[in-house]
Amino acid sequence: MVGVIVLDLFEAIRGRRSVRAFKPEPVPDEDLRRILEAAIMAPSAGNLQPWEFVIVRDEERKRRLARAALGQMFIAEAPVVIVVGANVDRSSWRYGERGEKLYCIQDTAAAIMNLLLAAYALGYGTCWIGAFSDHEVAKIVGFPENVRPVAVIPMGRPAEKPGMPPRMPLSKVVHEEKYGNPWGS
Amino acid sequence: MVGVIVLDLFEAIRGRRSVRAFKPEPVPDEDLRRILEAAIMAPSAGNLQPWEFVIVRDEERKRRLARAALGQMFIAEAPVVIVVGANVDRSSWRYGERGEKLYCIQDTAAAIMNLLLAAYALGYGTCWIGAFSDHEVAKIVGFPENVRPVAVIPMGRPAEKPGMPPRMPLSKVVHEEKYGNPWGS
Repeated sequence: MVGVIVLDLFEAIRGRRSVRAFKPEPVPDEDLRRILEAAIMAPSAGNLQPWEFVIVRDEERKRRLARAALGQMFIAEAPVVIVVGANVDRSSWRYGERGEKLYCIQDTAAAIMNLLLAAYALGYGTCWIGAFSDHEVAKIVGFPENVRPVAVIPMGRPAEKPGMPPRMPLSKVVHEEKYGNPWGS
Repeated sequence: MVGVIVLDLFEAIRGRRSVRAFKPEPVPDEDLRRILEAAIMAPSAGNLQPWEFVIVRDEERKRRLARAALGQMFIAEAPVVIVVGANVDRSSWRYGERGEKLYCIQDTAAAIMNLLLAAYALGYGTCWIGAFSDHEVAKIVGFPENVRPVAVIPMGRPAEKPGMPPRMPLSKVVHEEKYGNPWGS
């Protein structure tokens, strides 16, 4: 077995950060393959797997994506940018509006979470970007009408070590039996 | 340190299953705490953390949730059911409609993916359920208007070992530079 890396799940979940500065070192296809294989292990409604991934390495296309993402130009500095799309038809043919507006967004988000963790386990930084012009991103990577862009993810060896952004305590977001009853108190 | 468990991230991602049969053995709060702490490590748009979790153990409330989930009665057999909500206001005050319809759904889905993996690492089975009456579920756990139920998750020691549902190959869902160009071929 090549490239065995053991990283405890909880360490991965706690250690992953949103990285916005990258070294130019390229990302080999073999690493991308492991990362994408982890992504598609996410569960999906009816196992319909509405995800699509476009691997972008072309410099000019990365710059266009960065401009479409409201000018977040650090995106273009990553050696790879992954554009994730939700193939709406794949969910909606069975689930109608709930497939289109809920499941295909959730399923692709679950795949993205796996992708970020797997990338981190292999030593890559990523940033999940959701602020962009859907129309522009779809045009840049050639998504047809039925594929909605849901994330733009630059990936590369991190050139910064961000701290952990603060989290609200569990006492604020976990409830017992009914919303508003503090949990475990 | 109590309860150190090391489970490789990739093993966790590959080994997690959707479990629909549970042993009655209770889930201690300490395990729930580790699982929920993993959940809230997910990234969120603007770090706004729109997630809410309601821990349900009451038998009658679990049965009502199962009925609200289109009669999937196995839900009521799990010792714990976690209802996840998206606190829409928390995302929309800054991001408007994109916060309401995209970010808060994605952010809660990312937290759920972490939750499923962490539960698996501690030996629990889970099932991410999205098919339910929003109105009924909100009523059962007392969500106010601004909290949208996004998932119902039964959790317990698994009483079945499901196989892995088939996945579409990467060649079908990964594209190079433009949608439709097969990747790495």
